[in-house]
Amino acid sequence: MSGQDRPSRPTLVTIANELGVSRQTVSNVLNNPGIVHPATRERVAAAIKRAGYRPSAAGRALRTQRSMAIGLRLYRAVDGINGAVMDRFVHSLADEAQRRGYHLTLLTAEDADDEVRKLETLFRSGSIDLAVLTDTGMDDPRPDQLAEAGIPFVAFGRPWGRPDPDAHPWVDVDGGAGSAAGASWLRELGHTAIGFLGWPEGSGVGDDRRAGWARAVAGLPASAELSVAVLDDHPSAGAEGAAELITRGATAIVCASDSLALGAVGRLRIAGLLGDDHIAPLVGFDDTPVARALGMSSVHQPVEAAAVAVLELAIDAVSANGSSGPGRLLQPTLVPRQLAAFAR
Amino acid sequence: MSGQDRPSRPTLVTIANELGVSRQTVSNVLNNPGIVHPATRERVAAAIKRAGYRPSAAGRALRTQRSMAIGLRLYRAVDGINGAVMDRFVHSLADEAQRRGYHLTLLTAEDADDEVRKLETLFRSGSIDLAVLTDTGMDDPRPDQLAEAGIPFVAFGRPWGRPDPDAHPWVDVDGGAGSAAGASWLRELGHTAIGFLGWPEGSGVGDDRRAGWARAVAGLPASAELSVAVLDDHPSAGAEGAAELITRGATAIVCASDSLALGAVGRLRIAGLLGDDHIAPLVGFDDTPVARALGMSSVHQPVEAAAVAVLELAIDAVSANGSSGPGRLLQPTLVPRQLAAFAR
Repeated sequence: MSGQDRPSRPTLVTIANELGVSRQTVSNVLNNPGIVHPATRERVAAAIKRAGYRPSAAGRALRTQRSMAIGLRLYRAVDGINGAVMDRFVHSLADEAQRRGYHLTLLTAEDADDEVRKLETLFRSGSIDLAVLTDTGMDDPRPDQLAEAGIPFVAFGRPWGRPDPDAHPWVDVDGGAGSAAGASWLRELGHTAIGFLGWPEGSGVGDDRRAGWARAVAGLPASAELSVAVLDDHPSAGAEGAAELITRGATAIVCASDSLALGAVGRLRIAGLLGDDHIAPLVGFDDTPVARALGMSSVHQPVEAAAVAVLELAIDAVSANGSSGPGRLLQPTLVPRQLAAFAR
Repeated sequence: MSGQDRPSRPTLVTIANELGVSRQTVSNVLNNPGIVHPATRERVAAAIKRAGYRPSAAGRALRTQRSMAIGLRLYRAVDGINGAVMDRFVHSLADEAQRRGYHLTLLTAEDADDEVRKLETLFRSGSIDLAVLTDTGMDDPRPDQLAEAGIPFVAFGRPWGRPDPDAHPWVDVDGGAGSAAGASWLRELGHTAIGFLGWPEGSGVGDDRRAGWARAVAGLPASAELSVAVLDDHPSAGAEGAAELITRGATAIVCASDSLALGAVGRLRIAGLLGDDHIAPLVGFDDTPVARALGMSSVHQPVEAAAVAVLELAIDAVSANGSSGPGRLLQPTLVPRQLAAFAR
């Protein structure tokens, strides 16, 4: 395989050769046009335009020590139903990065250590200028590892479990407020036995959503008994958890995810709890395509706004050493829905 | 903002300065270690390792005229249920690219023209070596535009509607075979009125799936009347189409997508057609998380194998000018399932 076999892109040299002028002349037309004879300048400028010449990104990267690329790990969605919100985030981030002259470089990884290793390799070779972390967990090891390696980053997710709430730049959505809005809406519909279906304690995201529900049902009888945790974020686990809540007397359910809600809505139907208004007495989380399709009420995360905020903090992070500033907590919205006819 | 404010990555110069040797000595240790005094060599090698030095990707890109990046447009999933298969593909492609020393550079675009324009800009600045197209449509304009611009590419999707079946390098999945397998399975279950629920004629993918169903139901009475097309790939459209098919006498349905199947399964339940064995008499397409969660039978695309094949063709495309070779048609598999208890 020789260089000539490769599809070629226009360079200063190919344009110079085509016109029989020097590379320096072509470069001058681009960078210092005043010193080139007008006739030559016009001829060269026309050839540059015709060839669709773009300055070399690699040359610019060497000069500026910037790749204009952001490293992002793409997770494989475990059940793929709630994964839709992360896909929206990646799409929005790619959009917003592009708008600001950056692009996303994707990586995949086995685990957090592998992710940090790969980000380090990319950063040290100058392939990325910074990283965006997602899915921050309780006592997540990645922020400190990236900081130690000198890699600027922004997290979509709070520094859960850390004493300093602004340990690193972050953007997040107020999940507790979302679950509270869901529970309050079910109260307004007249329910007084509103359950919560979530995950075992210890996950920042899950605990936050449970706390929001607990705030909104305070004062209702038996509310403490109406919280059930399931291990998997999967509809079948949601169905089991919902059955348990119904046994304990719940007539409405706030779910920590749409995956759980998908299983729960089936149990509510089987138990005859859907009601005549065709509004399922449950609220999911993430406003996924499945929730929209079936007509399940859900909490919508402002993912596009989150991507914009992440990019703002990202540009701060690569511009000024160590400046992080406070995190940004965005507000979700409740989307109430009537069940689709085919789902009743 | 000055250069010193930026987080720094180790370079030959920073290592040379740290040790008080010349940049050339550090370079020699990396590229021509035999000419360096052993003691110096060891000292420099240790510093290189300690600093986590990686050769500059931009420097390598300038030398080799290769960015080792693949441009890929990320689509926003319209309904997000079938979008899951494209997410699996993007993840697999990122995985496989990484394994081969490439990475994916994401772009988003308004339409096909915008996609080609952005790929051209990236290619001409040397930011990507090639492109991967997805979702090829009937008479898709992008392949010719990319070929004209001299941009190597591989399509995940056939050259639908073109006289030359190998007009460009492509990888695809045999959708017709998938729908045929679904219809044959429903015949084996004893059904003789098996409908097809798809989209209006003119989409390569949809026509291919309909043709597969037609082959497998040949000889059954009234099969021609049991094909219904709906405009949207959405569960509510699927529910409407399924209602029409049931009215026409269908007792089982092959669907062109899981989005349509999700609406159809609700209609089959309402019509009392689910049967006592809890196997919904329908087959979706793409084996999405929703199909797995509800227990809907579906056609599974070998997306990981497709990503491997795309990378093989991609490396061919950037290595040898104009070599494309025949496309690769991969076989899908039918995944029969019993409905989850909560979905019956």
